[in-house]
Amino acid sequence: MDQNPEQLIAEMGQRARTAAGRLAGLPTARKAEGLRAAAAAMRAQADAILAANARDVAAGEANGLSGALLDRLRLDPARLEGAAQGVEAVAALPDPVGDTISRSERPNGLQLSRVRVPIGVIGIIYESRPNVTADAAALCVMSGNAAILRGGSEAAHSNRAIHAAFAAGLAQAGLPADAAQLVPTTDRAAVGAMLRADGAIDMVVPRGGKSLVARVQEEARVPVLAHLDGINHTYIDGAADPAMARELAVNAKMRRTGICGATETLLIDRAFADPAPMLAALADTGCELRGDADIRAIEPRVVAANAEDWDTEYLDSILSVKRVDGVEGAMAHIAAHGSHHTDAIVTGDAATAERFLNGVDSAIVMWNASTQFADGGEFGLGAEIGIATGRLHARGPVALEGLTTYKWVVRGTGQTRP
Amino acid sequence: MDQNPEQLIAEMGQRARTAAGRLAGLPTARKAEGLRAAAAAMRAQADAILAANARDVAAGEANGLSGALLDRLRLDPARLEGAAQGVEAVAALPDPVGDTISRSERPNGLQLSRVRVPIGVIGIIYESRPNVTADAAALCVMSGNAAILRGGSEAAHSNRAIHAAFAAGLAQAGLPADAAQLVPTTDRAAVGAMLRADGAIDMVVPRGGKSLVARVQEEARVPVLAHLDGINHTYIDGAADPAMARELAVNAKMRRTGICGATETLLIDRAFADPAPMLAALADTGCELRGDADIRAIEPRVVAANAEDWDTEYLDSILSVKRVDGVEGAMAHIAAHGSHHTDAIVTGDAATAERFLNGVDSAIVMWNASTQFADGGEFGLGAEIGIATGRLHARGPVALEGLTTYKWVVRGTGQTRP
Repeated sequence: MDQNPEQLIAEMGQRARTAAGRLAGLPTARKAEGLRAAAAAMRAQADAILAANARDVAAGEANGLSGALLDRLRLDPARLEGAAQGVEAVAALPDPVGDTISRSERPNGLQLSRVRVPIGVIGIIYESRPNVTADAAALCVMSGNAAILRGGSEAAHSNRAIHAAFAAGLAQAGLPADAAQLVPTTDRAAVGAMLRADGAIDMVVPRGGKSLVARVQEEARVPVLAHLDGINHTYIDGAADPAMARELAVNAKMRRTGICGATETLLIDRAFADPAPMLAALADTGCELRGDADIRAIEPRVVAANAEDWDTEYLDSILSVKRVDGVEGAMAHIAAHGSHHTDAIVTGDAATAERFLNGVDSAIVMWNASTQFADGGEFGLGAEIGIATGRLHARGPVALEGLTTYKWVVRGTGQTRP
Repeated sequence: MDQNPEQLIAEMGQRARTAAGRLAGLPTARKAEGLRAAAAAMRAQADAILAANARDVAAGEANGLSGALLDRLRLDPARLEGAAQGVEAVAALPDPVGDTISRSERPNGLQLSRVRVPIGVIGIIYESRPNVTADAAALCVMSGNAAILRGGSEAAHSNRAIHAAFAAGLAQAGLPADAAQLVPTTDRAAVGAMLRADGAIDMVVPRGGKSLVARVQEEARVPVLAHLDGINHTYIDGAADPAMARELAVNAKMRRTGICGATETLLIDRAFADPAPMLAALADTGCELRGDADIRAIEPRVVAANAEDWDTEYLDSILSVKRVDGVEGAMAHIAAHGSHHTDAIVTGDAATAERFLNGVDSAIVMWNASTQFADGGEFGLGAEIGIATGRLHARGPVALEGLTTYKWVVRGTGQTRP
């Protein structure tokens, strides 16, 4: 490329800022119309998108991409239609922009309010799933933000084709095409330039595996919305209903093992009377159980856990299992080994549950529910740009509201400060 | 010192995290009681604090500190009593911790709420004002956070004495003394260690001049809550009441020129009929006016502005003045030269005002009010840890609520995810 990455991102950032300024003033209906036009353009250009995707898939096969990566990369008419419907679903979400968060009147008559406004320019850095191009762009545009998208090199043709359709759709509806820009190079240096683009990009959202998130968190000068790990715990209290505990443990671990809300460690209260059926049920699903000596004494299929197991996000059919001394023991283990993502207690005792819900410092805490519910859609947000385990700005599943900030609006009648 | 700065801050951070865990579970009354005990201890140890302060002042005089710095450093019984009352005032503020931000029930019966919780560990880096020690610690403790305080070397004895009293008061009331720790060295490397203490310190708040804020923003790996500049504008629209415009312009600039809410640039609509009395009133106060040719043609005391004037925060009796073409011209100037702090419009036209309030991308936007109101106390927050011009987490004046985050609390009855 002719430009160095810093120049490229700086110029894209300026165009994005201008587009964001226009988007910020648009009513909800106009943004929704733009997204519906983008979805329509994706459908109209389906042949071009699928042909571009076929080139990426062929190159991926030639380069020996794993079956899982090829599956993430591959589009077919049904998946593309799903992506278009996803954009339309975002267009139908309630728009947080303009909402009044708080309102007050001062003794001097000044009227104060805090009003939600878009953040501005959001950078999205993702890997091989081309549908993130449309999904992330839609969430940004609906919340009044401009998106700078940087997808993985394996999906370069697919991303360009989806982006071309999306931006053309926005433009047809009278929205700035620069509201969703795709970084035109897959040079890795462009990612570094985005991460250093403090002032041009207001927040970066990495969408992908742990190595991507780790790199982004390590290098970024720009605020990052992300989670690195989901080392989630389900704690079975002594006062848990045994049947509920067994069903929740199996679902929390085994429903889907590869999602960030999957439980990775099962903590069982010493006061829980009969853990054997639960452990047997887990082992019967084919889950590998790694436990301490207490647990191995109960279920013979449990193998010995080592020290690293308590700090490992398996994302696989493996579960570490430990006996603990009551809710305090569970909370101490979670404080030492958790990743502040999602942790659950199973108990019939409300006071014990409240102790856990208050005392565990995680983005999501649950009582008598499967950690697999940790998801923006399941939380009723309609979508999700990501799940955040940081402490500032937004925590847990983040959708449109997490892509906004606020301004203070002060209305007076000529008040001067004494 | 024996420890390297990284070890020191890491160990302080661990103690702070433990203290924060205890604070997070305390009811409002216990935190308030702790702060009242801290204020009482400051009064009881007034002699020791004032003696320590006298040592700092003497050293400052010997080292040739400027009069302004000496004034910031100096405590007397009245100022110390004011600091103690400030701590008590924070103890009387409404506690945001535990507030429910949102609540919903899903079709599957899961009950979701978002509940305010403390952020955790807050680093405060400040300069020569020793009263920040008590003020910042009080805001952190009342919001359930542990504070790591690092004051300026000129105030080292004063800070140690105030901190000793404050922490002793907390301990007397049964709160963890580690809820407010003072970095025991004034080695500048300790500041660097705080700024890199990602994971140990959740947020850093710099309290001081621009060079401190710039260093913190430049070096920090930890999120920073701050504003670098307050290049604030007051725009006099063609539809402004002339008398109101004159009073607001004088107050916004001249009430106190050294605060971050002071107006630095006056924008006057070409359609504003008679700007001469306003410019004369400003010049009559002793304000130096720097203007473009249009402005100099109106008021002979105006000197020529150069290009840098539009980007300068004077914090002094100097005002840059420019004529612009209506509200659009004003917004374009502010977008190019503002610092996203506080900008005001003076107009009798509500539609024009709303255009400005919506279109100006600043933490605080005002209509017919003096920019000097940009202050947590004036906004009814009761106090202020700082004013933020970043876009994420908290914007504008930040007090207790801005020192909290939230967690998602999910209550179920055994739901598994299908």
